[in-house]
Amino acid sequence: MRRDLFTEDHEAFRELARDFVEKEVVPHYPAWEKGGRMPREVFEQMGELGILGVAIPEEYGGGGQPDYRYNVVLQEEAARALVTLSTVRTQLEVILPYFLHYANAEQRDRWFPGLASGTLLTAIAMTEPGTGSDLAGMRTTAVRDGDDYIVNGAKTFITGGMQADLVIVVARTSTDPDNRRKGLTLLVVEDGMEGFTRGRELEKMGCKVQDTAELSFVDVRVPAANVLGEMDEAFSYLGHNLAQERLTVAVGSVAQARSAIAAAIEYTQSRKAFGTPVASFQNTKFELAACSTDVEAGQAMLDRAVSLHVEGELSGADAARTKLFCTEMQQRVVDRCLQLFGGYGYMMEYPIARLYTDARVARIYAGTSEVMKVMIAKSLGL
Amino acid sequence: MRRDLFTEDHEAFRELARDFVEKEVVPHYPAWEKGGRMPREVFEQMGELGILGVAIPEEYGGGGQPDYRYNVVLQEEAARALVTLSTVRTQLEVILPYFLHYANAEQRDRWFPGLASGTLLTAIAMTEPGTGSDLAGMRTTAVRDGDDYIVNGAKTFITGGMQADLVIVVARTSTDPDNRRKGLTLLVVEDGMEGFTRGRELEKMGCKVQDTAELSFVDVRVPAANVLGEMDEAFSYLGHNLAQERLTVAVGSVAQARSAIAAAIEYTQSRKAFGTPVASFQNTKFELAACSTDVEAGQAMLDRAVSLHVEGELSGADAARTKLFCTEMQQRVVDRCLQLFGGYGYMMEYPIARLYTDARVARIYAGTSEVMKVMIAKSLGL
Amino acid sequence: MRRDLFTEDHEAFRELARDFVEKEVVPHYPAWEKGGRMPREVFEQMGELGILGVAIPEEYGGGGQPDYRYNVVLQEEAARALVTLSTVRTQLEVILPYFLHYANAEQRDRWFPGLASGTLLTAIAMTEPGTGSDLAGMRTTAVRDGDDYIVNGAKTFITGGMQADLVIVVARTSTDPDNRRKGLTLLVVEDGMEGFTRGRELEKMGCKVQDTAELSFVDVRVPAANVLGEMDEAFSYLGHNLAQERLTVAVGSVAQARSAIAAAIEYTQSRKAFGTPVASFQNTKFELAACSTDVEAGQAMLDRAVSLHVEGELSGADAARTKLFCTEMQQRVVDRCLQLFGGYGYMMEYPIARLYTDARVARIYAGTSEVMKVMIAKSLGL
Amino acid sequence: MRRDLFTEDHEAFRELARDFVEKEVVPHYPAWEKGGRMPREVFEQMGELGILGVAIPEEYGGGGQPDYRYNVVLQEEAARALVTLSTVRTQLEVILPYFLHYANAEQRDRWFPGLASGTLLTAIAMTEPGTGSDLAGMRTTAVRDGDDYIVNGAKTFITGGMQADLVIVVARTSTDPDNRRKGLTLLVVEDGMEGFTRGRELEKMGCKVQDTAELSFVDVRVPAANVLGEMDEAFSYLGHNLAQERLTVAVGSVAQARSAIAAAIEYTQSRKAFGTPVASFQNTKFELAACSTDVEAGQAMLDRAVSLHVEGELSGADAARTKLFCTEMQQRVVDRCLQLFGGYGYMMEYPIARLYTDARVARIYAGTSEVMKVMIAKSLGL
Repeated sequence: MRRDLFTEDHEAFRELARDFVEKEVVPHYPAWEKGGRMPREVFEQMGELGILGVAIPEEYGGGGQPDYRYNVVLQEEAARALVTLSTVRTQLEVILPYFLHYANAEQRDRWFPGLASGTLLTAIAMTEPGTGSDLAGMRTTAVRDGDDYIVNGAKTFITGGMQADLVIVVARTSTDPDNRRKGLTLLVVEDGMEGFTRGRELEKMGCKVQDTAELSFVDVRVPAANVLGEMDEAFSYLGHNLAQERLTVAVGSVAQARSAIAAAIEYTQSRKAFGTPVASFQNTKFELAACSTDVEAGQAMLDRAVSLHVEGELSGADAARTKLFCTEMQQRVVDRCLQLFGGYGYMMEYPIARLYTDARVARIYAGTSEVMKVMIAKSLGL
Repeated sequence: MRRDLFTEDHEAFRELARDFVEKEVVPHYPAWEKGGRMPREVFEQMGELGILGVAIPEEYGGGGQPDYRYNVVLQEEAARALVTLSTVRTQLEVILPYFLHYANAEQRDRWFPGLASGTLLTAIAMTEPGTGSDLAGMRTTAVRDGDDYIVNGAKTFITGGMQADLVIVVARTSTDPDNRRKGLTLLVVEDGMEGFTRGRELEKMGCKVQDTAELSFVDVRVPAANVLGEMDEAFSYLGHNLAQERLTVAVGSVAQARSAIAAAIEYTQSRKAFGTPVASFQNTKFELAACSTDVEAGQAMLDRAVSLHVEGELSGADAARTKLFCTEMQQRVVDRCLQLFGGYGYMMEYPIARLYTDARVARIYAGTSEVMKVMIAKSLGL
Repeated sequence: MRRDLFTEDHEAFRELARDFVEKEVVPHYPAWEKGGRMPREVFEQMGELGILGVAIPEEYGGGGQPDYRYNVVLQEEAARALVTLSTVRTQLEVILPYFLHYANAEQRDRWFPGLASGTLLTAIAMTEPGTGSDLAGMRTTAVRDGDDYIVNGAKTFITGGMQADLVIVVARTSTDPDNRRKGLTLLVVEDGMEGFTRGRELEKMGCKVQDTAELSFVDVRVPAANVLGEMDEAFSYLGHNLAQERLTVAVGSVAQARSAIAAAIEYTQSRKAFGTPVASFQNTKFELAACSTDVEAGQAMLDRAVSLHVEGELSGADAARTKLFCTEMQQRVVDRCLQLFGGYGYMMEYPIARLYTDARVARIYAGTSEVMKVMIAKSLGL
Repeated sequence: MRRDLFTEDHEAFRELARDFVEKEVVPHYPAWEKGGRMPREVFEQMGELGILGVAIPEEYGGGGQPDYRYNVVLQEEAARALVTLSTVRTQLEVILPYFLHYANAEQRDRWFPGLASGTLLTAIAMTEPGTGSDLAGMRTTAVRDGDDYIVNGAKTFITGGMQADLVIVVARTSTDPDNRRKGLTLLVVEDGMEGFTRGRELEKMGCKVQDTAELSFVDVRVPAANVLGEMDEAFSYLGHNLAQERLTVAVGSVAQARSAIAAAIEYTQSRKAFGTPVASFQNTKFELAACSTDVEAGQAMLDRAVSLHVEGELSGADAARTKLFCTEMQQRVVDRCLQLFGGYGYMMEYPIARLYTDARVARIYAGTSEVMKVMIAKSLGL
């Protein structure tokens, strides 16, 4: 269905993004998959092209366009070329908002130029072994000591953790036993700080061009100047940013599901079985028609959610609905498309296999489908 | 999710429709179900209130607002009250467009006032026994004889056929064997014309407040002045109107699915099992959260399709996608909601049972899900 | 798949049952649907043929074959002819076991001949308005008064309640507040006892040849000689019989799903769309292949469960699994088959429409799918 | 549900297999996954234990028990320990039958001892690039030249192709244009024969302990003594063996789905979320109850099919139904179980992630779900 989400500026950015992806990502992607990450210099290329800094104020070298739709365009163009820019996506859509909303003037001066140019890579360290998405159970601590905080704890499932120059660590700074939701603070730990080490890189089912790390903090001395936002207020910051994080996942889901269909159409039209193109079987047609319908439903829902988000009016429950629908839809669609490839669908050299293993995490991260349902049920008064 | 489809005028109409439904429909609905139809005087009431004539030019007593969104509002308000206005819906959304687009000046004078006031009830006779949705196979004929046409044939599945004053009959007027799609014409057969008889009223699974009839035409003499539109051009008229007819079904599907959720929330909150409200079980919460998500996806897709339709830009394939998704969604949602009622869900005194039996036809009429998939696949180049 | 459940004796009984259904049920079934029940004389015919008394000892006029597989055969033959014998099924599979297991010698003399001959019709009154399947919450009471019990209470959803000569009423006879599961007793209330009245007949979505009644008991004086089994022990009786009741539902589900496929094959082979038989479309073939696969899985599971039941080794959890799978399968299959009928599938004159409305209760009665899951989860140690 | 498929002999073999898997497979499995195959010496260990030769006549060092149920036991024990023995499975269930049925006395002497002892590893080379499962389109040729055949062609998707000492190659030996199904012959190509080379090892989504190779044959001179079975008759051989091959896949699917449930129960009981074990949420219970039900349906169907197969009475269509149901069930179940692991389910160190990527091929190999439906539909007369 014809969309009405984008302006000419977005479409111009789309040209830029498409060109970049085709020339600088696609040819190297297999190598990055082997290496488990995108090289640092590619971030710098993206910085130079202005892709990383779209939302950063112009005075720091950015584009001064804090418009979520540029992120949508970037993800769509990556998916269109059958790749993902996962770490970039995390940086731009999950982490950057914390810097944009909560950095003070001094921090802006220190960090924004590097964020815009791609020389500062970032991660956010929230999840801990054993606590999952239960922020109230977080055990990493930051204790005041003079002008510093001493950080101790362990984090896991940290996207981009191996490469990050700046890690936003969520730590407990107050232990009021009556309100375990209070007393969380964001501190920026920098590469090279003593006591900050990176542990194992976790082997994932998919999402290979993105490291996922365990991080360890033993008596790491973090200057108070690295506290991001107000003391003890991180719980509400995290809650506030989650809607966008979930939307981000949904954007990828819809775009990748759409790509899966395009790949399946192309494959079934060229591939013959029993003397005729696979695309000529009624089953193929009906499967792809069903997939296309599912994607268009997801796209309509997503575009509506993005519009509301741009207006600052997307509720947490609607972000949850959008993520729930779009990620489940992605799984259904990619699975059905893969099936049309027969044995080739199981071979990693066909991008559909990668789309399949990448897709499985979408129903899990940024809050599982079950967590989404809890939120939605609450919004229904249940 | 917040919608942006309606203006203040639509919302004012919504008040009117809601009030009418609550006072004039809901109290009588059980009796209408027994009787198998809505009484004629209710149409006249709706005529007086201006509900039937919204789209008819003011000079004929209508509202002069040919805006599809008024139809959406009317269906939504009926569904909200757990009833349907099926014959009205057929008249306004399926049949009226033929009159509006193709009636000549003389016909407008003759029929528009009655259509606006609710004194003229209508039906369209397309389907024939044995041909289903294959228009090319149609066998009813209209043969020129002086100033008249002699119509012969049999039609079935005619919504509102028992009550109709005017029946638009699709008949074959030319039999070029090389182009069976050409040569169909619309003729308006009037109640009382000799040779026009109504046969059995078909017993349906649901949709009880709506007759579905078999009609028979034996040497019915229809004046040429009753030909609607151009001779031999009905095939394209029908194709053109199908997009709206499908949208109409989708509108009802989304609205009724939404109502099913509301009914289930209310029921499960008041009903106890093993000492606690059914609504307090996690399964209940998750089922309703999933249903709510599904409905919001359908709503977003539908609203987008309605917007495009209002702009005259809804493609046939997108109408097909919208119908396919929304009707399948309706079935899933109503089924899940019914299950939460336990044994009461199977009792016709609970509206959820009626929603369930009503829902089953949505995937069938105005083109089955399979026909939708054929159209969608074509639009994908398959 | 070839089955190995039946012996020659069962197959001989199958011939008898098939012949009876074809000659005595099928021609009258539409009339019974209108009337809402099977006439008493048909029970007597079935009594004469030995169908009702298979499991009753020969000394009382029965067949002396308490072998559950005869019940399976009877249901299969009814389903094969696209009808159901619901009240008979309830009598034979749900109610008769209580008489067989718990009637004393005097009661056997009084009731068994009539049960075998079809002159005594029965019902069991368990569910109460507002308590659903929560036996512990039951409020009907039976209080000793001399040689009698005075029964007071209301029951609902009673299959066959309008016709029953004997109603097994579950009543509270002791009110130990510490153990609400104890203190339930079965009493046989007879037609004509003062204070026993039948209320409304409930209108159901389907299952039309079977009345479902509300029963009322106001100071009904029931002789102690009508107590069935031990005082205060009904809770365990009910629990024990539930496994068979659930199996019974599964038997019907599999048989009816199988019939739906047969009906759809026949219809799609004879019906043409766009010039070719509907059966020749790949979608039709694939849908029916999927349905056939689903039915064979259900049949294998069911036959295994019946075998274990005949050996007395079917666990409650396995009965629950069998009911859950077979009823959900039935719904999937009947729905897919109906869709292949197009508009005719929505017309009650086609048995597929009846199969559809009948099917919806299977996931609800004898314990909803949710109650099944609770039991199954317990058996997994959850 | 209690099964009745196995005798004491099978259960004794189960002990042996379980012990072997626990001691010799599980500790080394992660290393084998990295290496992409099971080392040759493990085959020899299995040979010594009698696992490989169960079905081979005693005179050649085998067990003389050509009973398919031993294969079932072996797969079940591997799945129970959350590993698979894919190449072994292929050797025993797919390839060995060709040797057992078609090897002549001289070939038996040459090859059976090595097959029983695990010193001869095998593969079967059927699929060719571009032809998929369309045997009639096969282009590899074997042309008589003196006492030899000259084999030319390319094969792909060959399980165990990198390690195989003996490769059964399906080649075209006659090119009657009127009957492309005739004229296929099996020839055993041996490791080291000139012109036989192994190409790329294909990277698969899962099934990592199993190589999948491309093989190339350029003027390979194969002695006529290596022809297996009759000339030109391979088409019927292949068709005949496919039922067992499909059953084999179903056996693995059921066993692995069962293991997924066991793993999920264990995980959710030990893992806490928001302070309570994940297993205590109703959603967890209901998901696992649904999975358990699905597995028991598959198990019942499979056990019935295995029984029929042991009796030599399993039809091709019933093998297809069994594969279709069990593989689709596996996918549903493994997916639902994985979801209960949250983020850990996406990490390859948790076996559930491996079960998930392994599962995806089951609906594809040995004939896709679509090919199964074609066969089933034919058996229904469609």
